[in-house]
Amino acid sequence: MTQTPTDAAWTELQTRFQELADLGGTLALLGWDQSTYLPAGAAGGRARQQALLARLRHERATDAAYGRRLDELAGRDDLSPVQARTLAVARKEFGEATRFPARFVAEFSQHVGESYAAWTGARPANDFARMVPYLEKTLDLSLQAASYFPEFADPLDYFIDQSDEGMTAAQVGEIFSALRAALVPVVEAVTAAEPPRTDFLHRRYPGQEQLKFGEAVIRDYGYDFTRGRQDLTHHPFMTRLGGHDLRITTRVKENDLTEALYSTLHESGHAMYEQGVAEELLGTPLGGGVSAGVHESQSRLWENLVGRSRAFWAAYFGKLRDTFPEQLADVTEGEMYRAVNTVARSLIRTDADELTYNLHVITRFELERELLGGRLAVRDLADAWHAAYEQNLGLRAENDVNGVLQDVHWYFGNIGGAFQGYTLGNVLSAQFYAAAERANPGLEADLARADFGRLHGWLRENVYAPGRLYTPNELVERATGEPLTVEPYLKYLREKYGALFS
Amino acid sequence: MTQTPTDAAWTELQTRFQELADLGGTLALLGWDQSTYLPAGAAGGRARQQALLARLRHERATDAAYGRRLDELAGRDDLSPVQARTLAVARKEFGEATRFPARFVAEFSQHVGESYAAWTGARPANDFARMVPYLEKTLDLSLQAASYFPEFADPLDYFIDQSDEGMTAAQVGEIFSALRAALVPVVEAVTAAEPPRTDFLHRRYPGQEQLKFGEAVIRDYGYDFTRGRQDLTHHPFMTRLGGHDLRITTRVKENDLTEALYSTLHESGHAMYEQGVAEELLGTPLGGGVSAGVHESQSRLWENLVGRSRAFWAAYFGKLRDTFPEQLADVTEGEMYRAVNTVARSLIRTDADELTYNLHVITRFELERELLGGRLAVRDLADAWHAAYEQNLGLRAENDVNGVLQDVHWYFGNIGGAFQGYTLGNVLSAQFYAAAERANPGLEADLARADFGRLHGWLRENVYAPGRLYTPNELVERATGEPLTVEPYLKYLREKYGALFS
Repeated sequence: MTQTPTDAAWTELQTRFQELADLGGTLALLGWDQSTYLPAGAAGGRARQQALLARLRHERATDAAYGRRLDELAGRDDLSPVQARTLAVARKEFGEATRFPARFVAEFSQHVGESYAAWTGARPANDFARMVPYLEKTLDLSLQAASYFPEFADPLDYFIDQSDEGMTAAQVGEIFSALRAALVPVVEAVTAAEPPRTDFLHRRYPGQEQLKFGEAVIRDYGYDFTRGRQDLTHHPFMTRLGGHDLRITTRVKENDLTEALYSTLHESGHAMYEQGVAEELLGTPLGGGVSAGVHESQSRLWENLVGRSRAFWAAYFGKLRDTFPEQLADVTEGEMYRAVNTVARSLIRTDADELTYNLHVITRFELERELLGGRLAVRDLADAWHAAYEQNLGLRAENDVNGVLQDVHWYFGNIGGAFQGYTLGNVLSAQFYAAAERANPGLEADLARADFGRLHGWLRENVYAPGRLYTPNELVERATGEPLTVEPYLKYLREKYGALFS
Repeated sequence: MTQTPTDAAWTELQTRFQELADLGGTLALLGWDQSTYLPAGAAGGRARQQALLARLRHERATDAAYGRRLDELAGRDDLSPVQARTLAVARKEFGEATRFPARFVAEFSQHVGESYAAWTGARPANDFARMVPYLEKTLDLSLQAASYFPEFADPLDYFIDQSDEGMTAAQVGEIFSALRAALVPVVEAVTAAEPPRTDFLHRRYPGQEQLKFGEAVIRDYGYDFTRGRQDLTHHPFMTRLGGHDLRITTRVKENDLTEALYSTLHESGHAMYEQGVAEELLGTPLGGGVSAGVHESQSRLWENLVGRSRAFWAAYFGKLRDTFPEQLADVTEGEMYRAVNTVARSLIRTDADELTYNLHVITRFELERELLGGRLAVRDLADAWHAAYEQNLGLRAENDVNGVLQDVHWYFGNIGGAFQGYTLGNVLSAQFYAAAERANPGLEADLARADFGRLHGWLRENVYAPGRLYTPNELVERATGEPLTVEPYLKYLREKYGALFS
């Protein structure tokens, strides 16, 4: 997998790659600091620094000489497979950065600013009508954006390709239809059963102890604290400040035992993915996670398939009770397991559980597909939203605040491509986990001993180390022996929730 | 003091200034993070990011078009005084960044690397002889460096001018001679007296409480936590991440009550200086502290003239005892005041007290002056060091480790200009403070009430707000009504230590 620099042209390219990566890491530091430790009065100056660095990076990423060098080298016939793929990814990124006319970028950017500002007023006023002209223009500009990439027949394919390279609306749509068909009855059954006891999750759990517990778990998982750290922010995230600097953040609620823990497990999955990319790919276009879906598969795998499993609680319930002996005195391991797997239908995506979250995503994906396909008019979107929620979740919001106005994405210029990765991640998490289990018989017993060596090792070798060396579809097939499929995820959900609530 | 952009050329220049400032702030963030929160494994990647940003900043700071624009504008006759001074400072910095041939910079830089590496081995081996050829070459290169600035008759004037613009070896030498003559008998008398009780400084003081106490004091001083913050590092420092982002760091020893407190007070002085620079100067070459000496005057003023005064302890001893009631149960306010003003002759600069520190600095300054003047050969430096310590401090190190090998500066390429600012700072701290007292009768009584409003206000108006609008010598004369003079400092020392130890 080593890249052999064959000559000076290739070496010069590596230098450019490394510069782009280092400017990206510096931008990430400016953003990390903004979210963690920036003094309130410094916000304006920080925004100016971020704009400057983003501009410097953009200038380098769109430099015509760089583009010519990429084209020249791509035409050669002595490239190694790694070199060929490196050039393919670099040229894809170069195209994304250069194909829009400057005038178009300026117009879109100004429109997004205006749309966002309007949304911050229209949302609390429950005034979707006010947003219709903005959304219509966003839709129009989005279709124009896609038109600069005529290699994609369906505009949605272009948007999906930006975050989940090579995946298509048809492929995702098929997966999502099958998933919805299977999910609706499972949710039906689970929510009809007696809800588990959750009172003890909301006792008082001091923040420092919660943080220490979560950090001890991810140290067991294999998150490398010599190449990362955890800090507190308003919204949890993972960020890449460098090839050896993958930081995560969390937030703590002293009256909610699950908030910090599951955000820590989630972000650690993103970070372990990036920490596991092969050393020789770092500083090149291949040196990072391959797609939104595969990235999310790792956060969901470590958060849900591991962190909400019976085996996990067999390993950790005793430790958690040692940390909080009074608060958990009257709680059993089984009660803890059931409590962290509570399922409830809700109107708000960001509050949803592991199971119903997918229905929120699928709803949005299908509405985007209709919008971009010209089969749904923006003025009918609020009603279509309510109808879809009724169909998919059996709920109808009493207003648009908890309906079509709830997420910022569409009002921030992102129609298409922003949501599907979450559910692709869930689907892939199970597909990868099942493959890891096939290769490592008795894996669940490892987890019950808090021994994550075989699981982490398999993921590192098959998912993390390759970085962007393969397309997402290729990676899935190489790692699991079959193309992207929803079956392992459905099997996982049926077995887990069947046993939980039958 | 407002800069009036007279035309497009001036506006373009402002944009360049702001970019240089923002790249500087980004570099400062990379460095701050390196010292505070960087994961150990990320050190290599961080060094590469720093080198890249430093190069990008250097390219902009030395851009020929920028230099031409500065020259053009400097030739105009319609400049406001602020514009004229802005151009003077910008051209000075441009000259410093461009006048050395690239070959010379590379040679000096390589030599510094080799010299530093040799010193890390020679120092523990007590082997000054090994360093002689390195130092000889450093001296030679330093003289060459100065020769690129023929406007300075004395090479030392060039080095002093880099950190203390407009000050000269003659001016500093005169101040230092007078200071030494006065200091030696004071130190003599003070160290002959019974040393104060200091046992209680070394009881156990939990770190968190120490930090909180220090932060409460500097909040009273007027350090603005909405435009700064304090974190922990190995060596305390102040850093400018932006015009509204002046951060300080400290370190805590649980068995030393003075370590964190006085480092916090010291760094807060540096930071309040920068926080006080007039808003309209930020993002221009005038938007920062004017010199090493004036900067140090503010750290020393808030650390020593305020923080080690009787009035300070009248205000804070009760609060400190409320924080640490058990540890300070048997201690009086007077004992605390005397303990933090202990004087002891020592061989090591970095361990020295307020009073004797100056003698360490003067010794180095005088040896540098002899070296650069060709009156002292490098091979005789170790002996000259011992003789100077005997004369100035009445002590002789038993080896060169605690002698000429103790400080990194000379072995890192800095002969001349690196030390004098510390003692200039002490001298200036008293001159500024005396002027503030004249303008604000009864100032000491304010301090004894922890009311720093008049002192901080006077300093902000007379020292901080102007930034680099005047040269250091001009600033001193405008603020205090007289040129740089050692008299107020000598008066302060005589009164304080006369009363303390008579």
